[in-house]
Amino acid sequence: MAQLDDLDRAILRILKEDARLTISEIAERLNRPESTIHFRIKKLQERNVIDKYTIILGEELQPKSLAIVYIQAETPIIEDFLERYISHIMKTLSLLPNVLAVARSGKDGIVAIIGDDTPEKLNRFVDDTIRSLPTLKRVEVFTVDQFIKGQDLTGFLVGV
Amino acid sequence: MAQLDDLDRAILRILKEDARLTISEIAERLNRPESTIHFRIKKLQERNVIDKYTIILGEELQPKSLAIVYIQAETPIIEDFLERYISHIMKTLSLLPNVLAVARSGKDGIVAIIGDDTPEKLNRFVDDTIRSLPTLKRVEVFTVDQFIKGQDLTGFLVGV
Repeated sequence: MAQLDDLDRAILRILKEDARLTISEIAERLNRPESTIHFRIKKLQERNVIDKYTIILGEELQPKSLAIVYIQAETPIIEDFLERYISHIMKTLSLLPNVLAVARSGKDGIVAIIGDDTPEKLNRFVDDTIRSLPTLKRVEVFTVDQFIKGQDLTGFLVGV
Repeated sequence: MAQLDDLDRAILRILKEDARLTISEIAERLNRPESTIHFRIKKLQERNVIDKYTIILGEELQPKSLAIVYIQAETPIIEDFLERYISHIMKTLSLLPNVLAVARSGKDGIVAIIGDDTPEKLNRFVDDTIRSLPTLKRVEVFTVDQFIKGQDLTGFLVGV
């Protein structure tokens, strides 16, 4: 685990909330000299504790319906085929704009976060694009309705 | 859908990659006057197309093992009980630091993104904290191994 003290953590929490704040605004909030805050942020960046600065897009650009999909491939006799097949599905999915995230899940599985304008369109997308894939053993779709933690996830993941 | 032109989208894509770039750096990249970029970003913020500026935390602070968990509650005879029970579990989970995100999933379900240092610790957490909850009908755990899209998700969600 990273060696961070209370001041480092306080700075990180503030930047998570609003990364546009100036050094002097952060210094004022934390009642510390600007030079200290400047030095700490510089160190946090150098150590890659802060990896990136980014934006979260507003509701207007976010899909209204969200789901997590788990896909499990049939285990074939030739192992190498499974590997290539999983890679191929992952790559195909990752190119689609309403697929917000794709990850491998174990040896024979994929998890994806999918968004669309309405639950109906989302279901149609899953039926047309995922359930129609050959040699799948299992497809599970879990709608994601209302976040109580991590709610900015959608605005973070959505592309433009 | 938001009315965005190519320039708006180009600006948003650049800010997603690095929100610390100055107006003049963005102007140079896009070969447009600074005043145009300044005006566009101002508008994008006012319209809440850009909702927030934030940071992504580096690997050092990220959990090494990640999983998506789906929890389905037993449907009780008294409906009001289900509602209160689901809310209670969601609130409890959201307070735990290794629960990165929690959302409602349909009438009787919850999805959560969970992280821990090792797969063993993650499994223990799921066994101790989730599978031990009373009156659950179904618990599904999908490990999230390697992202090919949305890889910054973990660094975005992790707390400090």
